[in-house]
Amino acid sequence: MGALDHHQITIFFLSLAVLLGTARVMGELARRLRQPAVLGEIMAGVILGPTLLGMVAPDLVATLFPRDGGGAIAFHGITTLCVTLFMLVAGMEIDFSSIVRLKRSALLIAACGISLPFSIGFLLGRFASEWVGMEHGADPLVFGLFLGIALSIAALPVIAKILMDLNLYRSDLGMVVMASAVVHDLVGWMIFALVLAMIHANDAVAHGGAPTTLRSAGASVGLTILLTIVFAGFMLTAGRWLIDRMLPWIQAHTQWPAGVLSFAITLGLAGAALTEWIGIHAIFGAFIVGVAIGDSAHLQQRTRATVEQFIAAIFAPIFFASIGLKVDFVANFDLVLVVTIILIACAGEALGSAIGARLAGFPRRQAWAIGFALNARGAMEIVLAMLALQAGVIGERLFVALVIMALVTTVVAGPIMQWVLRRPRPARLRDHLSARTFLPYIVAPSNEAAIRRMAVAASPIAGLPAEEIHAAVWEREQTMPTSLPNGLAVPHGRLESLDKPLVVVAIAPTGVSFDARDGQLSRLIVMVLTPASAHQAQLELLADIARTFGRKEVIDRAVACGGFTRLLAMLNIEGGDQAGR
Amino acid sequence: MGALDHHQITIFFLSLAVLLGTARVMGELARRLRQPAVLGEIMAGVILGPTLLGMVAPDLVATLFPRDGGGAIAFHGITTLCVTLFMLVAGMEIDFSSIVRLKRSALLIAACGISLPFSIGFLLGRFASEWVGMEHGADPLVFGLFLGIALSIAALPVIAKILMDLNLYRSDLGMVVMASAVVHDLVGWMIFALVLAMIHANDAVAHGGAPTTLRSAGASVGLTILLTIVFAGFMLTAGRWLIDRMLPWIQAHTQWPAGVLSFAITLGLAGAALTEWIGIHAIFGAFIVGVAIGDSAHLQQRTRATVEQFIAAIFAPIFFASIGLKVDFVANFDLVLVVTIILIACAGEALGSAIGARLAGFPRRQAWAIGFALNARGAMEIVLAMLALQAGVIGERLFVALVIMALVTTVVAGPIMQWVLRRPRPARLRDHLSARTFLPYIVAPSNEAAIRRMAVAASPIAGLPAEEIHAAVWEREQTMPTSLPNGLAVPHGRLESLDKPLVVVAIAPTGVSFDARDGQLSRLIVMVLTPASAHQAQLELLADIARTFGRKEVIDRAVACGGFTRLLAMLNIEGGDQAGR
Repeated sequence: MGALDHHQITIFFLSLAVLLGTARVMGELARRLRQPAVLGEIMAGVILGPTLLGMVAPDLVATLFPRDGGGAIAFHGITTLCVTLFMLVAGMEIDFSSIVRLKRSALLIAACGISLPFSIGFLLGRFASEWVGMEHGADPLVFGLFLGIALSIAALPVIAKILMDLNLYRSDLGMVVMASAVVHDLVGWMIFALVLAMIHANDAVAHGGAPTTLRSAGASVGLTILLTIVFAGFMLTAGRWLIDRMLPWIQAHTQWPAGVLSFAITLGLAGAALTEWIGIHAIFGAFIVGVAIGDSAHLQQRTRATVEQFIAAIFAPIFFASIGLKVDFVANFDLVLVVTIILIACAGEALGSAIGARLAGFPRRQAWAIGFALNARGAMEIVLAMLALQAGVIGERLFVALVIMALVTTVVAGPIMQWVLRRPRPARLRDHLSARTFLPYIVAPSNEAAIRRMAVAASPIAGLPAEEIHAAVWEREQTMPTSLPNGLAVPHGRLESLDKPLVVVAIAPTGVSFDARDGQLSRLIVMVLTPASAHQAQLELLADIARTFGRKEVIDRAVACGGFTRLLAMLNIEGGDQAGR
Repeated sequence: MGALDHHQITIFFLSLAVLLGTARVMGELARRLRQPAVLGEIMAGVILGPTLLGMVAPDLVATLFPRDGGGAIAFHGITTLCVTLFMLVAGMEIDFSSIVRLKRSALLIAACGISLPFSIGFLLGRFASEWVGMEHGADPLVFGLFLGIALSIAALPVIAKILMDLNLYRSDLGMVVMASAVVHDLVGWMIFALVLAMIHANDAVAHGGAPTTLRSAGASVGLTILLTIVFAGFMLTAGRWLIDRMLPWIQAHTQWPAGVLSFAITLGLAGAALTEWIGIHAIFGAFIVGVAIGDSAHLQQRTRATVEQFIAAIFAPIFFASIGLKVDFVANFDLVLVVTIILIACAGEALGSAIGARLAGFPRRQAWAIGFALNARGAMEIVLAMLALQAGVIGERLFVALVIMALVTTVVAGPIMQWVLRRPRPARLRDHLSARTFLPYIVAPSNEAAIRRMAVAASPIAGLPAEEIHAAVWEREQTMPTSLPNGLAVPHGRLESLDKPLVVVAIAPTGVSFDARDGQLSRLIVMVLTPASAHQAQLELLADIARTFGRKEVIDRAVACGGFTRLLAMLNIEGGDQAGR
């Protein structure tokens, strides 16, 4: 006892490998369909758990993911660590100081976007609790509070990702949405901490204080709530200030990045232990510590990226996939409840935020876009629902309904925003690259010859004669050279009879003169062909190419890549950013 | 059952926080003393475990690090995961392909450096087993084999770090040492896998095959060894080839870095599960998978860095600190045994490798330097010793002796190499920066005025009149301008009566003309004063400054840093590299 045996260790590693591998494959599939990775990760658990694999091979599932014994305990320890570190990172993504600078508009949107869904959820939970799936024996007050939070929470990272996809992140609309989402998250988790405190204290009183808990049985709701407020209050004021003072010293005097990484994670683990001890869940402490750390202007972007990359790539998928292992999503699927929850979620949050946005003076279409952006629940709702399930506030039916609601509101947010704003997804270089229009090695005596060579390559795919393509691009080239600094050239042309944009990439290691201002020969030639009607797409593609190849190193690496897959890999790594959750 | 309770979760997070925090603080202390971080991390466990804290407050230690129950199991799961991922990274650091290109000299050194200590260890273990600390009841053959490996293993990462510190990493000597160390590690772990297979098979036979193991009781030594060889053989040939083919695709088509990170870790976990199932330890599978992955030329440096940084900063310290928790280092300290082990370790490895180096034609002093470099056992020996302790091959007395031997051989390697090579540690900019010689904002009409201003700042610390400093530097400046590209200037001078090098850094945001070739005004001025005798130090410092500020962004960031601590932090982050273990 006290250690895993040989068999348990084998299963422990095997189950983690299967879970992580499946979660990644499904997450990538979701990403291909332009959906958030968390959708695929949850699906991985559904596939491996009782819902699917468990139906076919229950013994295999029972062996791989044991429900009791040492293996189950070790697995529980790991998944608890995973969700706690995920919440540390989620907290780090919150820009707490932005609240102080909050504009009236963001406050108004947050106020409406929280109060309407919270009221709906609270009233339904309190007074129509059977109808919205409360379990027998639960406390209607606690249940009402929880449902209010569940309907009013927002998911910062996934909202940020949706805004970035639509090129709205740095717009007025984007800033207002992000600021409101910060308020949603902070308020939601604060109230949830109090709900957990109430549950814990109720339990402690009910059981007369189990001897296994550290604190005495006399713990009252009041004390737990008081400690929670003191902890959060301290961390967000003096704690935040202290961390901000300590970070420059740590970054200057300890090994980088190990010093600052351990600092963040040690603090997160300590916060988790403290809030678990207080009687609310460990993740709350990690989240608040994350907010306090992430707020420091001294936290270097590279440190942030290292923490986030590893946790987003390894810990979060393991946790989200493990959710699907716990519950049978088919047996607990209640269509009426799922539809009800989705409808009241949208009616509360999207409508509430849209009303707030209208009051703040946004035009009607923008107001709806803001509403549906904040309506995306993403991973946050799922973490919340899992804690409520563990605490016995909700049953498996409502849990399944909440997870589905979180996924549906997240999946529809982007398309609905595009539709109400009449804003198609901007054209990106990445989406128009193909091995068939990639020329890994050309030698051309002149820019005209290079354009001709590329027009020939484009011709079969465009379904147009090479002559016509060459004529259009060459005519444009003659009006003004299309060279950019460091050996990049972007010849381009519009063609009446083209259906959709087409990009041809050619590498000319010996260089071709495109009359560059800096006198350099062009070694990387990216030809952009667009339909005559798609003015916007041409601009967007040229801008994306200029941004992608803005640094000399990137051009050098592209020229030296030696193959299409490696070119894609290089662009992928250069442009690598966070998954939206 | 099957989950941690409230109290256990609290302790779980608290123990991890305490362990990681203490390990980092002690690791940083070790680093200050120019010692490998692993020394401090082991010390953290010694402080928190039975050796020190356990003497003063045994109840506290028992509560924080429970020895049985669910908390102990979860903790065991985490530390097993930590060491497995550490070995995955250790494997990734091995350049397997280099073996194919191995020069005769490296092979000769490896052959002598393995065979001599292995023979000594094996013979002593086999025939004088009592004297070198074998436990009663252990199998002398197994013990002999283990002791042979324990004396002949090398620690790649820590050796790399020592060579880098001495500016020898890219020298002939450095290359030969690294190539020999790769052979040491691969051979050592392969033989150790066979030893584990023998132990496992012996156990299986002895216990008549416990029903908890996955494999049937009929498992023989032969089968386990066969499976081990098949697995390692497959991974290092076909597996390596497959991974090399898959990596470009993964890097091109999945989200970066999440896709490739999950791929590496999933594969590592799967390898761990497989070797644990075969009957040797999980870490062997992770190590071999690491070798196969790390060998691919397609594995991007940035992916490698992200995996290594997180694992080196978080998982490795938790594991190494947890070692100290298991054993009482004072009660099991046996001076005679410790000295014996250290002496035979050095006699075997340092002497053996030095003989090999002499045979390969290296001069005497260089041969000794090679011997003592390969003599550094670092973290590898400690992992090995822990596995042997867990498997019952060795007892706590020999375990303590081996850990101390690993630390001693690592700590002395650098100084002995410096001494035999008569090669002092090269002067580094970082070691000569100080807040007292940092001028965060100067405005000077000319380079002479700037030099005068900096000479005044240097004067009290140098203990020399400002006039004398100014005269020396200005005289040098007039012979040829000391400006470098992008607004950097490095005025310098030699002073008869100076004891040790002195560096003054001044930031002149408005710029000072140092007659730069690129016509730019100098915004960052780094003045280097060296004793007249220290010709080498001046060159090394100037080279280090040119390297540090080689890119325009770094100079821009230094000019904008706004304070000494932030300047240090920036340089630390720019120059951040791996800890030696």
